[in-house]
Amino acid sequence: MASKTAFALTAWEKPCFGKRRSQKSWCPYPKGVITIYTSYSGQISLINLSVLWCSQPAVRLKSMKKKAIILQSGGSTAVINQSLAGVIYEAKRSKTLSHLYGSRFGILGILKPNWINLLECPPRTLTALGETPSSALGSCRHQLNQRECSQAISTLKRRGVETIFIIGGNDSAQTGLKLARQARVKREKLQVIGIPKTIDNDLPGMDHAPGYGSVARFFAQTVQEAALDTRAIRYSDPVKIIETMGRDSGWITASAALGRKKYEDGPHLLYFPERPFHLSKFLQDVKRVYKRFGFAVIVISETIRDHHGKRIGSPASVVAKDQFGHAYVEGTAQYLCHFLESKMGVRARFDKPGTIQRMAMAYISKVDQKEAFGCGVHAVRLMRRSESGVMVAMKRFSNKPYRIQYDMVSLEQVAGHEKALPANFINRAGNDVTDAFKRYALPLTGPMPHNHVSFV
Amino acid sequence: MASKTAFALTAWEKPCFGKRRSQKSWCPYPKGVITIYTSYSGQISLINLSVLWCSQPAVRLKSMKKKAIILQSGGSTAVINQSLAGVIYEAKRSKTLSHLYGSRFGILGILKPNWINLLECPPRTLTALGETPSSALGSCRHQLNQRECSQAISTLKRRGVETIFIIGGNDSAQTGLKLARQARVKREKLQVIGIPKTIDNDLPGMDHAPGYGSVARFFAQTVQEAALDTRAIRYSDPVKIIETMGRDSGWITASAALGRKKYEDGPHLLYFPERPFHLSKFLQDVKRVYKRFGFAVIVISETIRDHHGKRIGSPASVVAKDQFGHAYVEGTAQYLCHFLESKMGVRARFDKPGTIQRMAMAYISKVDQKEAFGCGVHAVRLMRRSESGVMVAMKRFSNKPYRIQYDMVSLEQVAGHEKALPANFINRAGNDVTDAFKRYALPLTGPMPHNHVSFV
Repeated sequence: MASKTAFALTAWEKPCFGKRRSQKSWCPYPKGVITIYTSYSGQISLINLSVLWCSQPAVRLKSMKKKAIILQSGGSTAVINQSLAGVIYEAKRSKTLSHLYGSRFGILGILKPNWINLLECPPRTLTALGETPSSALGSCRHQLNQRECSQAISTLKRRGVETIFIIGGNDSAQTGLKLARQARVKREKLQVIGIPKTIDNDLPGMDHAPGYGSVARFFAQTVQEAALDTRAIRYSDPVKIIETMGRDSGWITASAALGRKKYEDGPHLLYFPERPFHLSKFLQDVKRVYKRFGFAVIVISETIRDHHGKRIGSPASVVAKDQFGHAYVEGTAQYLCHFLESKMGVRARFDKPGTIQRMAMAYISKVDQKEAFGCGVHAVRLMRRSESGVMVAMKRFSNKPYRIQYDMVSLEQVAGHEKALPANFINRAGNDVTDAFKRYALPLTGPMPHNHVSFV
Repeated sequence: MASKTAFALTAWEKPCFGKRRSQKSWCPYPKGVITIYTSYSGQISLINLSVLWCSQPAVRLKSMKKKAIILQSGGSTAVINQSLAGVIYEAKRSKTLSHLYGSRFGILGILKPNWINLLECPPRTLTALGETPSSALGSCRHQLNQRECSQAISTLKRRGVETIFIIGGNDSAQTGLKLARQARVKREKLQVIGIPKTIDNDLPGMDHAPGYGSVARFFAQTVQEAALDTRAIRYSDPVKIIETMGRDSGWITASAALGRKKYEDGPHLLYFPERPFHLSKFLQDVKRVYKRFGFAVIVISETIRDHHGKRIGSPASVVAKDQFGHAYVEGTAQYLCHFLESKMGVRARFDKPGTIQRMAMAYISKVDQKEAFGCGVHAVRLMRRSESGVMVAMKRFSNKPYRIQYDMVSLEQVAGHEKALPANFINRAGNDVTDAFKRYALPLTGPMPHNHVSFV
């Protein structure tokens, strides 16, 4: 195996063979024959060095190349594997790396360690990988503590890995930042490069994040479809609430309005975590819409809060306990359905697409898919430019036609900060989006495919 | 408007102009000019009859044709409008009808009445109609009483409609049967033809119903996607429950297994309303799967019942009331999540796709789409064959290659009866499907498109 060779020259050792590297030495042996053993004391013992002097080109000397590791972190998206495929593709193409390890289950796979070499991935798998939702390498939600941070850095050093790519959102940026800082304290060379990923679209310093375009397309289309259903059956089930994810920002909820052609089609009301939620105003809004159209389609973030900051439908809003002594935690949508039914005397139903919203390959945005791949490619370029402590960022330089460029942002700017839906994207009443939001978001989802027919 | 002409010869009047009809008379006037007024006393007063004797062919005498009405009923599907499009297409093609009315909001639109003439639908609208989920004419859930039944028949008679097409499931068949019986009692001529529609696939007398193939495809794919998500994040959120619709039959739940390549991929456990649900056995099953794979993906029907016949997660299983004095009704999946969390100490999450499952155009089955259209076409043929009190039915005469033929079944056989998932489609343990089910269902969904990659 070539791994023994790749053992030779790592980030932790001082450069050697400088001359030979510049001579671009070649050897006629198959990869596995070049065997160079090192000790970690700083001394290098060379065995079978003769192969370095062979003149016929066959295998480029692996030992001149670096090793990197990549991990996926946090909640998955429909395009997170496109970014992984982008990194693998560019690493293979540029031939910069001897090894690109994939860490299984995010940072947990570095602590264990539990790795695979992704450069051995055949092109067929690479294509299928891009079409696979969720994190193919596995993911986790784990906050590194000081001890684990040191442990991770030691493991990376021991295995000769000098670059770490982290595909993730705010929390993953935090993990990357911790590793970068700890490495600096320990005077270890460790290049940390973040690749943005989140359906929530709440990463600061960038126009948008991969994952958002697809979830936005999912809601733009499925809310139209659910609205058609409610419109048709309005004499039986006139009220429909759809609950979205999105942490403390309303980007996903806002996207539900993107498929709307006429206001009547719905969604009629959208509620964002950026604005305090008042039950009485909500009831008033729903009654008004119901009176006007005979049905109402409402989209809410699962994290909307009342003016005291308490989550609607959270344990704080209920008192009951179940037979296991467990407090009933009603979901936000379910809670609001009960509320409307009791106040309006009509049937209210809810949809909670849960993980389906972030995994639905059939509703994927082609733009998003392409950009996620591009972010992966750009990360490898940042590595080659020796950047560290940064995250890839997309900047929009033209909206019509839609054009972006890949740039970077410091991890400090992303970690622990959330980008809320700007005030000019929410209407004055706090229950709908503005045209400015549509202009921003529609290029990310791509055109809406359906022209629906309704006779009612 | 041609409507005045079409007023002339209706089902409620004795045949007249017999000779002229056989002569296939033509007139040179545009539609609206031929004006024949009738009294409903049985006497017919003719005005402008001279036009009948013109010799140049231009407009076929409309008054020889019949009138029909079509309605959509019950919960919508992704392909119900294909059946509507099929009826309109065949009615236009065969030129049997002078009017094909569409009743808005199902049977409520007949009682009101609230109709449109669908023969005026341009081809472009017809194509878009087939691509629209939900009931384009509107739907309702309404049980006709005796008085309403008489009222509906009187309205149809007064407007000269002698055929009624009802696109619906079990309950709609019941409505059709009531109308047919009442018409027979009243000695009125009324042809009732049902067109099957249900995501639940519980209509007796047929191999399957339009609507099922698409919802089956939705679950076959989205459960695979949700399972990939759970597999990836197993150290944080290892248990996922997905709640399906399907009334008292487990057809939809069963379909969730169709996308599974290997058992490990999931779904690992499926629970059907056909078998009593035991919490202790459920816990045992989940613990076993979790121990083996580190995660568990479970699909349940929202209507599963315990051995006393009580719905899991229904009001009967909770005692608490909310601040409006409303009993907490936990959904089945939510209830089971709480149960598993308290017993296993791991996080369990649930997805409840609700109406999204029956409307998702992006996951539609092409086979289902085509067959739904075919059922509409066949209904018009049954009308021309003077059948009544029947529903279109698809019979499978070959499974490899998959071939069906359109047939019919009496409304009596469908109304109020439900076709449960047969015993040989459920495994012995009652928590999975058999290969026999897969052989049955896979031709209905079409091939699964994705080959997913997972490194964990």
